[in-house]
Amino acid sequence: MIEVPGMAAAAQESALAQLLARRLRIHTVHESVVFLRSDSPVCRAEGLGTQVRVTVRFGAREIMATLYQVDGDALGLDEAGLSESAWKRLGLQDGDTVSIRQPHPLDSHSALRRRIFGHRLDETSLCMVISDIAAERYSDVHIGSFLTACTTLPLDADETRALTRAMVGTGVQLSWPAEMVLDKHCVGGLPGNRTTPLVVAIVAAHGLTIPKTSSRAITSPAGTADTMETLAPVDLPIEHIRRVVDQEGGCVVWGGAMQLSPADDIMIRVQRALDLENAGQMVASVLSKKIAAGATHIVVDIPMGPTAKVRSAAAADVLQGLLESVACDFGLHLTTLRTDGRQPVGRGIGPALEARDLLAVFRNEPDAPVDLRDRACRLAGILLEMGGKAETGQGYQQALQTLADGRAWKKFVAICEAQGGMREPGVAALQRPLCAPEAGRVRAIDNRRLARLAKLAGAPETAVAGVEMMVRMSDTVQRGQPLCCVHAASPGELEYALAFAEANPDIFAVEPI
Amino acid sequence: MIEVPGMAAAAQESALAQLLARRLRIHTVHESVVFLRSDSPVCRAEGLGTQVRVTVRFGAREIMATLYQVDGDALGLDEAGLSESAWKRLGLQDGDTVSIRQPHPLDSHSALRRRIFGHRLDETSLCMVISDIAAERYSDVHIGSFLTACTTLPLDADETRALTRAMVGTGVQLSWPAEMVLDKHCVGGLPGNRTTPLVVAIVAAHGLTIPKTSSRAITSPAGTADTMETLAPVDLPIEHIRRVVDQEGGCVVWGGAMQLSPADDIMIRVQRALDLENAGQMVASVLSKKIAAGATHIVVDIPMGPTAKVRSAAAADVLQGLLESVACDFGLHLTTLRTDGRQPVGRGIGPALEARDLLAVFRNEPDAPVDLRDRACRLAGILLEMGGKAETGQGYQQALQTLADGRAWKKFVAICEAQGGMREPGVAALQRPLCAPEAGRVRAIDNRRLARLAKLAGAPETAVAGVEMMVRMSDTVQRGQPLCCVHAASPGELEYALAFAEANPDIFAVEPI
Repeated sequence: MIEVPGMAAAAQESALAQLLARRLRIHTVHESVVFLRSDSPVCRAEGLGTQVRVTVRFGAREIMATLYQVDGDALGLDEAGLSESAWKRLGLQDGDTVSIRQPHPLDSHSALRRRIFGHRLDETSLCMVISDIAAERYSDVHIGSFLTACTTLPLDADETRALTRAMVGTGVQLSWPAEMVLDKHCVGGLPGNRTTPLVVAIVAAHGLTIPKTSSRAITSPAGTADTMETLAPVDLPIEHIRRVVDQEGGCVVWGGAMQLSPADDIMIRVQRALDLENAGQMVASVLSKKIAAGATHIVVDIPMGPTAKVRSAAAADVLQGLLESVACDFGLHLTTLRTDGRQPVGRGIGPALEARDLLAVFRNEPDAPVDLRDRACRLAGILLEMGGKAETGQGYQQALQTLADGRAWKKFVAICEAQGGMREPGVAALQRPLCAPEAGRVRAIDNRRLARLAKLAGAPETAVAGVEMMVRMSDTVQRGQPLCCVHAASPGELEYALAFAEANPDIFAVEPI
Repeated sequence: MIEVPGMAAAAQESALAQLLARRLRIHTVHESVVFLRSDSPVCRAEGLGTQVRVTVRFGAREIMATLYQVDGDALGLDEAGLSESAWKRLGLQDGDTVSIRQPHPLDSHSALRRRIFGHRLDETSLCMVISDIAAERYSDVHIGSFLTACTTLPLDADETRALTRAMVGTGVQLSWPAEMVLDKHCVGGLPGNRTTPLVVAIVAAHGLTIPKTSSRAITSPAGTADTMETLAPVDLPIEHIRRVVDQEGGCVVWGGAMQLSPADDIMIRVQRALDLENAGQMVASVLSKKIAAGATHIVVDIPMGPTAKVRSAAAADVLQGLLESVACDFGLHLTTLRTDGRQPVGRGIGPALEARDLLAVFRNEPDAPVDLRDRACRLAGILLEMGGKAETGQGYQQALQTLADGRAWKKFVAICEAQGGMREPGVAALQRPLCAPEAGRVRAIDNRRLARLAKLAGAPETAVAGVEMMVRMSDTVQRGQPLCCVHAASPGELEYALAFAEANPDIFAVEPI
């Protein structure tokens, strides 16, 4: 132990500087921001440069934020300007004062550093990292670095298990009266694959419990929560969700607000910015939320195709193995279903457009997308069999029947009403077709770039934006025939999407016959 | 090719929205920031959320920036608030108007993504990444992700070579009248190892050309430029540097302003935030700057020790191999020298404290740190031999003599005067000793945590801050005897450093005799 004469005295000194909190109403996603005058005494006393991390304290509350220095008189010398997130997290009122300090070094940063240099992390270290991320102590740069390190040197089974446990540990855990709680998940990567509302309605129609919490899009043009939100409210308080599930047996709500896995919700933002996902991260993200949500039986849809998220049987094996082994450790019954991921499902890509496909299937409309109905029934079938509502091998037929005779639609409407009222999805003001340059047969469709196109058009932030497919693989088309139609709400987004389409002529591979 | 009806029309629409530029005098390091009202028509027209990347255009100039949305009337609906860096890079004047758009997707991001997923990049891809970074088109998150990927899966020789070439390609290249241009570099990691000014003075005193461009600290408490700046101006325009070198044969200036490797200068900031360095990155960073600076002969100091940057002979071999093979490809004569990296060099750690050590050596003061003089002379000796000013094996003696008879000091003063005038380093207002808890022998000293201590005390931003060593390894000490002294300019920094010292009692390992 080194003796530090006068330590206590020193400790007093700089804790005192109080600054008047100024609400700047600046929106940041997670990383809180604070502004100080460059010539502020605090910057001198604490030796703070611009863009450094600082600790902001109000009474007993303390947050970490990124400091920006400002010149001129926009801010007073004794003022601290705070972003909206900082203001809310500290629970400030006008006239309150805060103190700003050097942050204490995060122990988890040395763990992060070890991981970056290629060393595996144990559960203790991962817990430190995850709880610091959950407490919003990490800058986006550090979160991005953690995600990158876990992608370049993929998380192994032990790390994935530890990461899952760490994520569950930082969040709220739900429990349900039912002994058997069903759930489903799709690893994504397939535009328009919006089976969840169908699966939930079918399964719940049979009296089973399926409290489905869905996420918003990470890197895709629409998450189930984004699509469902065009049909009914999805951002509900937990008490409301319980009422819906007690009453209808199922729900389709946004899980983000429930803090099931707060660290994951934060990392997802940075993942989105980096357009990055990896198997271990995906498994930990999925299972931590299922475990926290109290699920006991899960079916996972793994779409496979050259441009899907999972591109080969080998990759699917890795993912399935990781899912099963980690699920098993947590006592979860998990079944995977590999599906055709060569082309989008249904016609719509984007929240409102996908919702229209769902309604068509629910209402048994003649032109309802068959592939969407078929996928939903295969997944629902597995759950019906798991739940003892169908003989082994009979689940699929059972599910089809439940749609055909309107029980699923009736249940879905009831769920939407219970969630706050059913509504009709909107329609985009701007629509422009992409046409075949010459006659031929559609040989291939690039899911990733179609998804990109839909995102550039504004999905999912703009619910009505996206892409409406007008052909499927191996269709024959005439010269000038529309292949798909871009839907957008603003000229800027439409132009941006069309520019991308022009630059990527081979999103659709049309070969002359 | 997909046909896009009315593309041109769409292209017109959103280019028009002009916003009045407002200078907010907010300091960012590199990443430019722009503020818009959340309800601004531009956010709607372009579909822009908060914290997204955007393109800001003024006339022919265009930069990329991170957008933050603001509520309230701090900004007008038709105004765009710009950070200082954005303002300057666009060359704006009050009253100018700018347009803000969705950025075009960066091609290099797909290369970055491939690297993150563990695929090697060729020179073309690395050039795309580096030139986008140099043009400040990358957010800090993306730069951090690139650095992390290149650490977790270390850059190989080919990538390092390509990265070096890419970095040279983005910068200015210097050339000198002399046929032989000498240079030296230390891979760092050893606090207080400030030999450069001594080496330059000794070598230049023999009429050789050694135009030394140094960097500021990356993750250390002081870079050579930081230390030299306490003795003379180092931030000089290139014409001034040429005059200094023409006149004195050598200089010790900051290379950053010369844009020798702008991408590297930008990456270094993020490296600093992540406290991250890797061999390939280091080699590319060093050699790109030496090549751009026009060096033909280089000696590289590789300090080795359990807590130095290079900790083992194996690690040194990797680094040396990479340095030699890449240098060779560029026709550089490179010699490495492995030195004792077990403990700090000299007594000072931090710009001003290290400068005082230098002055003591130059002035042949009786208590001048012998280890610093010795290391400088071994390095200078190699250069004297390379430059034909000493017989093989005689360089070291030659260098010692040059110091002893005052020629080196005379040359150093002349260089400082030529750079704008010599000055005396300052002294810290606050100094507090760390004392031995009991009598014993100093068995080990933790360089990394000593460096950390000096940084927490304020170095290098605060020039007078740092740590003054009062013992060396295997010294015997009495109970309560000072082991080192922490120098700080502010109570906040002093307290922060002392708290770290208290939490890390084994920075000095003192074992009872």
